[in-house]
Amino acid sequence: MIPAELLRKKRDAMPLDPSEISFLVHGIVDGTITSAQAAAFLMAACIRGLDIGETIALTDAMARSGVRYDWQHIGYAVDKHSTGGVGDKLSLLVAPIVAAAGAIVPMMSGRGLGHTGGTVDKLESVVGFRVMLDDDQIEEQLHTLGVVMLAQNQRLAPADRILYSLRDETGTVESIGLITASILSKKIAEGTRGLVLDVKVGRGAFMQRLDEAWKLAETLADVGRGAGLDVQVFITDMDDPLGNAAGNWVEVVEAERALADLSASPRDIADLTLHLSGAMLQLAGIAQTLEEGMANAEAVWQSGAAYERFHQMIRAQGGNWNVSVERYANIPTCVVESSRSGYVAGFATRLIGLTLVELGAGRRRANDYVDPAAGIVFHVRRGDCVEVGTPLATIYASNPSHIEHCAYQLSACIEIADEPLPPRGQLVLEQLS
Amino acid sequence: MIPAELLRKKRDAMPLDPSEISFLVHGIVDGTITSAQAAAFLMAACIRGLDIGETIALTDAMARSGVRYDWQHIGYAVDKHSTGGVGDKLSLLVAPIVAAAGAIVPMMSGRGLGHTGGTVDKLESVVGFRVMLDDDQIEEQLHTLGVVMLAQNQRLAPADRILYSLRDETGTVESIGLITASILSKKIAEGTRGLVLDVKVGRGAFMQRLDEAWKLAETLADVGRGAGLDVQVFITDMDDPLGNAAGNWVEVVEAERALADLSASPRDIADLTLHLSGAMLQLAGIAQTLEEGMANAEAVWQSGAAYERFHQMIRAQGGNWNVSVERYANIPTCVVESSRSGYVAGFATRLIGLTLVELGAGRRRANDYVDPAAGIVFHVRRGDCVEVGTPLATIYASNPSHIEHCAYQLSACIEIADEPLPPRGQLVLEQLS
Repeated sequence: MIPAELLRKKRDAMPLDPSEISFLVHGIVDGTITSAQAAAFLMAACIRGLDIGETIALTDAMARSGVRYDWQHIGYAVDKHSTGGVGDKLSLLVAPIVAAAGAIVPMMSGRGLGHTGGTVDKLESVVGFRVMLDDDQIEEQLHTLGVVMLAQNQRLAPADRILYSLRDETGTVESIGLITASILSKKIAEGTRGLVLDVKVGRGAFMQRLDEAWKLAETLADVGRGAGLDVQVFITDMDDPLGNAAGNWVEVVEAERALADLSASPRDIADLTLHLSGAMLQLAGIAQTLEEGMANAEAVWQSGAAYERFHQMIRAQGGNWNVSVERYANIPTCVVESSRSGYVAGFATRLIGLTLVELGAGRRRANDYVDPAAGIVFHVRRGDCVEVGTPLATIYASNPSHIEHCAYQLSACIEIADEPLPPRGQLVLEQLS
Repeated sequence: MIPAELLRKKRDAMPLDPSEISFLVHGIVDGTITSAQAAAFLMAACIRGLDIGETIALTDAMARSGVRYDWQHIGYAVDKHSTGGVGDKLSLLVAPIVAAAGAIVPMMSGRGLGHTGGTVDKLESVVGFRVMLDDDQIEEQLHTLGVVMLAQNQRLAPADRILYSLRDETGTVESIGLITASILSKKIAEGTRGLVLDVKVGRGAFMQRLDEAWKLAETLADVGRGAGLDVQVFITDMDDPLGNAAGNWVEVVEAERALADLSASPRDIADLTLHLSGAMLQLAGIAQTLEEGMANAEAVWQSGAAYERFHQMIRAQGGNWNVSVERYANIPTCVVESSRSGYVAGFATRLIGLTLVELGAGRRRANDYVDPAAGIVFHVRRGDCVEVGTPLATIYASNPSHIEHCAYQLSACIEIADEPLPPRGQLVLEQLS
């Protein structure tokens, strides 16, 4: 095959067949397709779109471009993926809950980029925690605990790593086909059989509109199934930060506290965690229905088994909880107070995410250093009544120099209205099945 | 400006403004825009199209990306460009005719690529002929002879060289905007003020359909004028090879013989040469009308002044005519004879061009070696009556190993019908003004 001929075909809106897509992906990894040719493919894919068949072929070729784990000899492997939000620490709860309820969770996640956080960054705030393990260690831990939480290593879907970086460089990030293949290829390569997808929509999500989220959700479901996964997709509300904490260590603490006591967990965290965990247990065949899965999840949560599994996993991967708690005990803080009285009407959640990046909790570029201590803990939620001087949020950062500016910016992100507004609705907006 | 943002804009079908296009072109030359970003721009430009304003801005930025000659202190500089055909040696006639009639012709041309030939390859078949001269030599020769025929040097529109190679690599050649900017930027950089464009259409041209040729012709006219050139555009028939010879040295000889004796020149060569030369003289203000320009051209042709100017130029640029004639005297040949009787109905002209490439007269890749001796001389034209055994063409090549296969292929390119067909019509199909 001649690369320029394939590019010409896609340029002229003719779909590429699986062997052509596989040829391109192989060439991108082995260097016989130049970065200019890869970029031209990405631009053509972005403008012309990829149909479901092309997206399945791309997902499959990318999943096969590096190592491909298989855990079937251990059990049914199930995972979740969220399209990204602010304060979304649900993986930290869901993984130990689902493992405690009997499924295998070989979770390999990404780092934060842009205004949204990443699970790996959160986990690395735990002192000593290793997000890379040898293959033998992964297998051993999946046998003993049923759960690992790792970073996607260099051998996992290398085609995705190359393409992802080129997409960023060439303005071709916003393509449902390319987004879908990127998400699913890495999950297929990690060896999961079932995948629950949490497609977020709203002011803190990449998708602002429900119709866009629907389109992505349907594509993820169709392509995931076409590529051989068992899939369930939820569309969930990302208008407000999820829970009260946003950052890295502050989110780990919120997750740990929630696992310790379900009744003390913020309602949105509990609700969504039970939905996602329940769906994962249903995919794994441990529950027959979503409701039964949610009941199973609630049982291991209430019993303390999930909490215990969380700490077993932290220890198994080298994390030292007590040392972490001590290390972050004296981080500089700043409390943002309300300058007026009224009712909390909502949050400028995307701007909160960008404020977190300025604070050091996220990254502008892939190689930026992340401050594990940086974060925000909100003291109010939508609908709360506030007076002048009511504490709205506390800001944490290792380097105090940015705090003041961020406090000023954050105070503008919490909207106060004179009259109470209707309370926030259900977090789970849609379920595709 | 952020490159990815500009690419996103073009991706989403929003036109780029001149400063944005200039930023991209500058970055492509100085390396701050990566080849991946340049390729993504080319693919987006190919699919979304470039409007006239964008194409003018691209042409202008590319023309300014390297040296820009200016010959206004010598006279009115005028040039011609053909979109490429088989047997198109007209530049070899037009340049000395127009110079002999009083205009300045600073012609800098490309090499052949694909099935069409290039003026520089033809000129280099003359032993000793130099297609690169120092700037001082160019100026001196324009003063004394009014004409130079050169290759486009490395300093001329370097942005075009980079983009042209990337277009070839990424399947983004076929874009009227990109083609237009590539053609015009190099001509503007060489310092021409007037430009006559010969847009070829038919079986031997890049454009097979008249509507495509019209679109390109109109774009060349609009963008050329927008970028400050005086422009005339002809759409001409490229169904049959132009003249009797196709190759390199064989075309130079045909041009030289035609200049020596207008009455012995093939009618198509004479007709088109007079049209193009006449239009150039009109642009240069030497003639008031096309007809007057054609009469001027015919006068310098008939008087022998153009023939003399041709040989003066060959000598001035180091060429040795007599040595060349001797060198090519004993080239291996093969005569293709008709296997049936009937009338010549037409030529598979594109395939003839590809046969010339196989023979060594053209190149598949930019760095391929070209055999200056390789070529075809046709002994019949459309409408001629032939018998079994009538010589149809003679094939020349330094390396005889390919000749037999090419002879077989060539015999299939000359179509013989039982009944005579209507004769070939006018070569000049349209004139835009």
